[in-house]
Order: sequence, then C-alpha cells, then structure tokens
Amino acid sequence: MSLLDALKWRYATKKMNGEPVPQHKVDQIIEAAHLAPTSSGLQPFRVIVVTNPALKEKILPIAYGQAQVTAASHVLVFAAWDNYTEERIRGVFSNSNKERGLPDETPSDYEVQLTGNYTTRTSEVNFNHAAKQAYIAFGMAIAEAALLQVDATPMEGFNADQLDALLGLRERGLRSVTILPLGYREENGDWLVNLKKVRTPASEFVIEYN
Amino acid sequence: MSLLDALKWRYATKKMNGEPVPQHKVDQIIEAAHLAPTSSGLQPFRVIVVTNPALKEKILPIAYGQAQVTAASHVLVFAAWDNYTEERIRGVFSNSNKERGLPDETPSDYEVQLTGNYTTRTSEVNFNHAAKQAYIAFGMAIAEAALLQVDATPMEGFNADQLDALLGLRERGLRSVTILPLGYREENGDWLVNLKKVRTPASEFVIEYN
Repeated sequence: MSLLDALKWRYATKKMNGEPVPQHKVDQIIEAAHLAPTSSGLQPFRVIVVTNPALKEKILPIAYGQAQVTAASHVLVFAAWDNYTEERIRGVFSNSNKERGLPDETPSDYEVQLTGNYTTRTSEVNFNHAAKQAYIAFGMAIAEAALLQVDATPMEGFNADQLDALLGLRERGLRSVTILPLGYREENGDWLVNLKKVRTPASEFVIEYN
Repeated sequence: MSLLDALKWRYATKKMNGEPVPQHKVDQIIEAAHLAPTSSGLQPFRVIVVTNPALKEKILPIAYGQAQVTAASHVLVFAAWDNYTEERIRGVFSNSNKERGLPDETPSDYEVQLTGNYTTRTSEVNFNHAAKQAYIAFGMAIAEAALLQVDATPMEGFNADQLDALLGLRERGLRSVTILPLGYREENGDWLVNLKKVRTPASEFVIEYN
C-alpha cells in the first residue's frame, strides 16, 4: 500500500475493539519515530510505551475519558525535552562522533555554536522547539501505523501536567506533548469511521509562486 | 520500498544537482502533507510552492546562503495560521459539513466549544499550536519524498520574518515555520551523504511501562 493510500485509509479511530497489536508492528511504528529527522539531529524527545493495564486505567481520566486509551493494546506517549542543555547536546554529539568514528575530545565549532544558541534561550522556548521535533516523529509513527493497517488515534486532549506526574516524566527532564493509542477499529459503534474524510480544498491549501 | 527503508535512505541533503523533480512527484509529496492529521481537522497551515528562479534567489540569503534553496527545483514553505479565528474555524466546519452532506445552518456544540477555546487564547499560543500541526504535515511530506526517492532538506534555519515579507504571508494570515527544498543529491561534494546515519540508542529513546 502506498503512503497516500494508507493516509486515506487511516482516521482518528474513536472506538477500538481491544485486539492487541503484535509487538513487531509496534516496534516498526516506534522505529519510524526513531528515524524521523529533527533539528540538528538532536532528537529532543522520547517515546514512552504503556502496555500496563492498571497504568492505562489511570491515564483514562487524564485523557478526559477517551476510551481508546484503555482499549488500545499500546499507548505511545511522545514527550519532549523540557529544555536543551549543554549536557544533553554533548551526549548527542558524543554518540554521533563515536558511531561515525570521528574524534570527540573537544566539541566542534558547530556544536559550540549550537549549544550557545540553545542555552541562552528560555526553557519554555526550548521546550516548544523540542515539542515541534516530536510532532515530526509523531507524524512518522502515524504514517507507519497506517501502512501496517494498525489503527491509531492522535491525541492532544489530555492533561499534560497530570500525565507527567503519573509517568514521572519531569524527573526525566521530559514533558508529554501527544498520545498515540494503537489498536484496531471497532467499526460497529465508531461514529467517525464511515464519515467522509474531508480536507481543505487543494486550491486553498496550496499557494504557488511560479 | 518500505517507509522504514525510505527513512534510512533519506538524509538532509546538503548538495543538490539541479535536476528538476517531476511535477507529479511534487504533487504526491504535497498530497501527503494535505492528508496529514491535524488537531480537530483544522489544517491550520498552508504549503507554498516556489519554483520561480528569481524568487528562489531572493530566498537564498534569507536561508543564510544554504545552496539547496536555489539548486532545488521546488521549494516548499510550510506556513502556519498566525492565529485561530472564528471565521477560519467556521470555514473548516462549513466545508466539512458540506462535503459530508450534514446540516450547516448553526454551528454544532463541538464547534462552538472549540471556537471558544481557541479565541480566548493569545495569538502567540495559537500560532505555536498551529505550527505544531504543520510539523506533522512536514513529516509526512519528508516521508513521501523519501518513498519517491526524491531528496529533501528539512530546514528551520532561515529568517521567518524576512521570508514572510518576501512571500506576502502575513497579509494572508500566515507565518512561515519550515522550508523543504526538493531535488536530487549531488553525491560528489556533499559532505553528509556518506556519513553514517546516527540516532539516539533505542534503549534511551524508548521508555517502557509494562
């Protein structure tokens, strides 16, 4: 199936049937997020995978009762760095240099400049920037799920502070930004499944400068 | 080619060879962005397609001299709504109702609530939220380009105010957030093409709650 056909097939599943997604498919979905490009390759976010039933029950009210959270076999939480710090940036470059067989005794001019740019901004500006990178990966995960015919519901509707507290994210320097429950649609009783997919007319969406 | 293989194949191309991307491939790349999911389906962004050589030349200094801007046959600019307004939200719901054959005389409770939520926030908060939705679509476009073996360079490094002025985006209620030049790699002279793709170790990237 082409990506375009997969994107037409997918929709924000409102009712899931409880059938579990095989782990190897979940791994591929996460791998798509893992391979997503990010600004300077910093990957300033993490993917939290929740399968624990008791924990999903606790997430349910935090996600305002959206039932996909418990009907899904896997709930992915995308959580961005709460800030860019020298230590975190160093860690990324150090790993990259090691993997590429490059010297790593002293940070490159590029790394020094990048670190200077980030560490002079507020944590809120940095968190917002990190969150945007997470959204690229969020998109990749949604795309890969659709290609594997796995249903997914992209969610922003949850109390991030409460979810951070439940999962201990702040202690890890992370803040939750989006949720992606994975499962299979229950066509019977999903009010959205048979509604036509609608997009802004292409003539409005695309602006050409030829 | 699978999406995962395409994501491994792609890289932030630093040097392009000037060969033009066929229009039907560009159309598919834009279609992937067009089909991307967004919060409440509002699609609060537009894709600007620049092919005009003189205009690309003017973008070059705004993008700090990154040569892909002029070597690419098509430069996509992702630009988010500068704000969520009642009129814009109404337009989306009105189009959706029309396409789905639903009544559209009075806004639904859902639309009224959504409009209330957005229009009581600052434009800066709303713009940031809209920008995040654009990043999902940005990711989809990058994915589709890779699947079509078209090279692309995701860029945040440009002066957004200057680009907005050049393209007249503010007058349209838009603010540029990312750029995606499309073309083909020039392997000879691209310092990045042969460097190993490195990602954060999976053991760090994924956090499991089983």
